[in-house]
Amino acid sequence: MTLQRWKWTIAYDGAPYGGWQSQPGGNTIQDHLEAALSEIRGLPSGTRVHGSGRTDAGVHAYGQVAHIDAPIDLSLDAKAWPHALNARLPGSIRVLDAEAVPQDFHARFSASEKTYVYRLYLGKILPPMLWNRVWHIHNSLDVGALRHAGQCLRGRHDFKAFAANRGKNSPPPATTVRNLTKVEILEEPDNQLVLSFTADGFLYRMVRMLTGTMVRFAQGKLSESDLLSLLDDRELLKTSACAPAGGLYLRDVAYHPRG
Amino acid sequence: MTLQRWKWTIAYDGAPYGGWQSQPGGNTIQDHLEAALSEIRGLPSGTRVHGSGRTDAGVHAYGQVAHIDAPIDLSLDAKAWPHALNARLPGSIRVLDAEAVPQDFHARFSASEKTYVYRLYLGKILPPMLWNRVWHIHNSLDVGALRHAGQCLRGRHDFKAFAANRGKNSPPPATTVRNLTKVEILEEPDNQLVLSFTADGFLYRMVRMLTGTMVRFAQGKLSESDLLSLLDDRELLKTSACAPAGGLYLRDVAYHPRG
Repeated sequence: MTLQRWKWTIAYDGAPYGGWQSQPGGNTIQDHLEAALSEIRGLPSGTRVHGSGRTDAGVHAYGQVAHIDAPIDLSLDAKAWPHALNARLPGSIRVLDAEAVPQDFHARFSASEKTYVYRLYLGKILPPMLWNRVWHIHNSLDVGALRHAGQCLRGRHDFKAFAANRGKNSPPPATTVRNLTKVEILEEPDNQLVLSFTADGFLYRMVRMLTGTMVRFAQGKLSESDLLSLLDDRELLKTSACAPAGGLYLRDVAYHPRG
Repeated sequence: MTLQRWKWTIAYDGAPYGGWQSQPGGNTIQDHLEAALSEIRGLPSGTRVHGSGRTDAGVHAYGQVAHIDAPIDLSLDAKAWPHALNARLPGSIRVLDAEAVPQDFHARFSASEKTYVYRLYLGKILPPMLWNRVWHIHNSLDVGALRHAGQCLRGRHDFKAFAANRGKNSPPPATTVRNLTKVEILEEPDNQLVLSFTADGFLYRMVRMLTGTMVRFAQGKLSESDLLSLLDDRELLKTSACAPAGGLYLRDVAYHPRG
């Protein structure tokens, strides 16, 4: 059977789901996508969806990327895929786009860069519509200090202090060095502050641990030398600050241009 | 027991709830507020919350108003009320403000004007974060025609064609004449269009029926004479267009200034 590989861009509200990765319970993004696929005629049963990476329970996405292989004679083109899938998915998961890609494209291994955003809410009472979608910061926070912390963390570092363990069934990453190429702080209307992180890859819970640490620094609970020592690979420190899942969004995944 | 009347301003995401009004099932906004009250020491058990009006299942509020009576010696002031209640409420219901009011204030009967907004989404694929929070319009819509329909409907009219029956246990309203003082159409970023309606009062489902009718007109499915005949009190017409609950928000309730 000749196969066509398809690249999908997917957005989701993570609040009702147990994360990206398939689980026995079945209520994950991958499970819902595979259930939608199983209703499409002409696809072999058990067709798998390969994501660019897992997102944790409660984490959202504006632009998660995944790929699947489908028989080349399947009568669904790039325009028809989103429509066919969205008709079978819950409204809180949407396939935004589909693109035919070469067989050597891999949603995870071909990724060159990812961008995550983390949303903070600084107002007094959290609007109901933002519940589970931002981190509500109750104490005052110095935005200048937050920017400064971002600039300290930016660059190629050993980020092992900002990595959680995935559990005993997951091997530790080969290296904990990552190139955090961009950290931006954007003030939005309605008391929202958005932290944006771009890197060649992220360790497990890295964005939430970076955010938690930056917020502590911006609240005066952590000194600059404490912050810098977390980046010192001779130290065996681990940050204890981890921002909640609900404020985190996978914004997009970039791929090397194909030659 | 001497009582103090308190006026609350309340915001909620209506999606998870069975509307405002208390029900045997218990999952309504009023039920959750009364459950929160029942945990506050010093309040007589069974203290009732009186809303400015019912909102249907799935309808949201930025500024619903309600009142309660509490013993005058209760040690909660205007600042402490929202905090005490929000600590006991789900995150999708927030008390924004509390204000001590005279005993003759009534959330429903003292209201002089209400404003509702209705949110339309005009883009191709509905972002997951807007699911249950807007009405997704798939076919093209003429914004100029929508504004024109709004201007036709504005004013004092018999709106009986825009009223649904509440059911056999609710008596019909004494009059179906209402003064729709303002209809505004606001174009927002991200493909959203917001319709705002202000009146001295609204009939049951009136905003959803006005919106549904205006959208039909703006899609060329209803002529101007059809629209105008719905306002003719000699006719026995009823609009069959009713916009879904999820796009509707009670924005605020105004009261006569107290002399």
